[in-house]
Amino acid sequence: MTITHPSGFTAAGVAAGLKSTGALDLALVVNQGPTFDSASVFTANRCKANPVLWSQEVVKDGVVRAVVLNSGGANCYTGPEGFRTTHAVAEKVADGLGIGAIDVVVCSTGLIGLANDRDDLLAGVAAATAALSADGGAQAAQAIMTTDSVAKNTVVEGAGWSIGGMAKGAGMLAPALATMLVVITTDAVVPAAVLDAALRAATRVSFDRLDSDGCMSTNDTVTVMASGASGITPTPEDFTAALAQACTDLAMQLLKDAEGADHEIAITTLHAATEDEAVEVSRSVARSNLFKAAVFGRDPNWGRVLASIGTTSARFDPADLDVAMNGVWVCRTSTPAEDPTGVDLTGREVSVTIDLKSGDARATVWTNDLTHAYVHENSAYSS
Amino acid sequence: MTITHPSGFTAAGVAAGLKSTGALDLALVVNQGPTFDSASVFTANRCKANPVLWSQEVVKDGVVRAVVLNSGGANCYTGPEGFRTTHAVAEKVADGLGIGAIDVVVCSTGLIGLANDRDDLLAGVAAATAALSADGGAQAAQAIMTTDSVAKNTVVEGAGWSIGGMAKGAGMLAPALATMLVVITTDAVVPAAVLDAALRAATRVSFDRLDSDGCMSTNDTVTVMASGASGITPTPEDFTAALAQACTDLAMQLLKDAEGADHEIAITTLHAATEDEAVEVSRSVARSNLFKAAVFGRDPNWGRVLASIGTTSARFDPADLDVAMNGVWVCRTSTPAEDPTGVDLTGREVSVTIDLKSGDARATVWTNDLTHAYVHENSAYSS
Repeated sequence: MTITHPSGFTAAGVAAGLKSTGALDLALVVNQGPTFDSASVFTANRCKANPVLWSQEVVKDGVVRAVVLNSGGANCYTGPEGFRTTHAVAEKVADGLGIGAIDVVVCSTGLIGLANDRDDLLAGVAAATAALSADGGAQAAQAIMTTDSVAKNTVVEGAGWSIGGMAKGAGMLAPALATMLVVITTDAVVPAAVLDAALRAATRVSFDRLDSDGCMSTNDTVTVMASGASGITPTPEDFTAALAQACTDLAMQLLKDAEGADHEIAITTLHAATEDEAVEVSRSVARSNLFKAAVFGRDPNWGRVLASIGTTSARFDPADLDVAMNGVWVCRTSTPAEDPTGVDLTGREVSVTIDLKSGDARATVWTNDLTHAYVHENSAYSS
Repeated sequence: MTITHPSGFTAAGVAAGLKSTGALDLALVVNQGPTFDSASVFTANRCKANPVLWSQEVVKDGVVRAVVLNSGGANCYTGPEGFRTTHAVAEKVADGLGIGAIDVVVCSTGLIGLANDRDDLLAGVAAATAALSADGGAQAAQAIMTTDSVAKNTVVEGAGWSIGGMAKGAGMLAPALATMLVVITTDAVVPAAVLDAALRAATRVSFDRLDSDGCMSTNDTVTVMASGASGITPTPEDFTAALAQACTDLAMQLLKDAEGADHEIAITTLHAATEDEAVEVSRSVARSNLFKAAVFGRDPNWGRVLASIGTTSARFDPADLDVAMNGVWVCRTSTPAEDPTGVDLTGREVSVTIDLKSGDARATVWTNDLTHAYVHENSAYSS
């Protein structure tokens, strides 16, 4: 159940020697057609890696025929020479497939400032091209793992068509430093403009609402390719709903595999004046190191939730806020209510519910707790 | 060398039983005149504690005759009953001193949602009033400590006048959850309007640029009182400079005592288009958990610095950024430059210098690294 589940796609994952461990580190996903519609979104970080600078040009015409991804080096802040490496990789893929380099998206992940050996990369591309198969999705998903503990795959079935997806990362689209790379395939017939609208709608409520550590990557890329091989054209509504399901499934897999996390925390803001304000409030809590450390310590510290809400510009009455943790309303009208000792934080899943009493909008942002393992993973190793 | 160093002030610190350890937990600082000019700044958090809501009214007329401070409970999100406790404390101080309650600033620090016993507080006020002395500054500074490992005091000498100050906290004015409380005294003759301008100028470049963990307190308060007891009226420029020196000294003491920190990090942005943009860039780096964890791991990870810069709206060319760590220019024109292995991060003090090449403005923001001890202190105990 991988990106090669929809018809019209081949993929491969190979070991190009970029990872010192000898693990798979280069993936190739090819749309065999008959259509080549695509849509992509990239990191909002202004400091973008060379593969992002390249791929932003590739996707402009709505046509993508292949995505090549490597782990073991982000090719970010590697200067003009790094950009030439990205270009050479795209050209090598194009040569092997008999297509144009301008239809090849390139993604890289790993340490910033580190340029991979170009010869290693090009040899890897050749090997991956030779290994392409309609069963190659699982290996491709393996090859893009970095600190991921498991490969992330998804499949959503439509009526006679399907969506496949793979992801790597321990973060989120925006913001995230631990690069998030996502490739999504479908054999539905979906024009590029519809794909683009569907992708933006789907990422807005999935990847964009993951906020594992508030840091924004230089390399994040999500690309969806439609082969049209099923011959079926779903309604835009049906396709968008299925794409949102696939993105949400991958996002939850990323959340559960976040570096060093001990809890998955869903922060839902209810009765906000607007959805943007609901997101702002939930995100402010998701970024509070003090709140996240308290969850790690299994301490239902709702004071840290209120202190975060107070930093936002959302509409609410500071004297009339309600907060629940795992269903226990520990705070009502901004005063202590139900007994916090009734909040059981021993499980991995934690819900925080905030009632702003200011409107009808709502939103959920997902984050993780702040743990010793997070500090360890991000201090003991360069990444 | 405490807040009772300037003439015209008495102070006391007593144990009111608010801390279960029996340690000093209630402080009183009284301006004996002949003048009672004052200025204050408070947390920017919209969710403010009851003592802040009270004190904001007290300071409006520029007259403050006493500041009473307690540790052991923040009196935040304790509802109308909590506000009545704050009011009762101010009335008790006023009764003991023969002044009006509307001239008494109240500060509290401790756990949010926790109301102290009102009788304990009032008995503590009576004891502190009885213990007031011109040598009481040191005990007052002791009484406001919470997770502080040392009391923070400062004195700056003027020409025939002086400034004294005390502070508690492991954070900063805005933002900071670990409450920062600061009382500053001077025997100079300084009208309230001059005090206000001087205090805003001084905090803007000191407490406001501490960003130990990006969290904003509900209780932060800084109050300066001028007794005029020296009879000397310094120029506003001289007084502002001395006040800035006192605030910076206290801010650096707070930085060095931040909860669980292993390094003090000064992040300086050079050649920004405006000072605000320099602050935005430095602050973005100060809030990067990934960068802060890397410093803890003694890893000169400049990629995480660039990734943070890229999240800002400051003017710069993403392809032309220079970054130095401890004087080693590890990145020039956004590509690797000097060898990062030459950056020695074994000492506590770390400097990061960012050159935006976009103007003449500069600013420094101070932060700490993200350590196991930070996670421990903020997960193992409620605060």
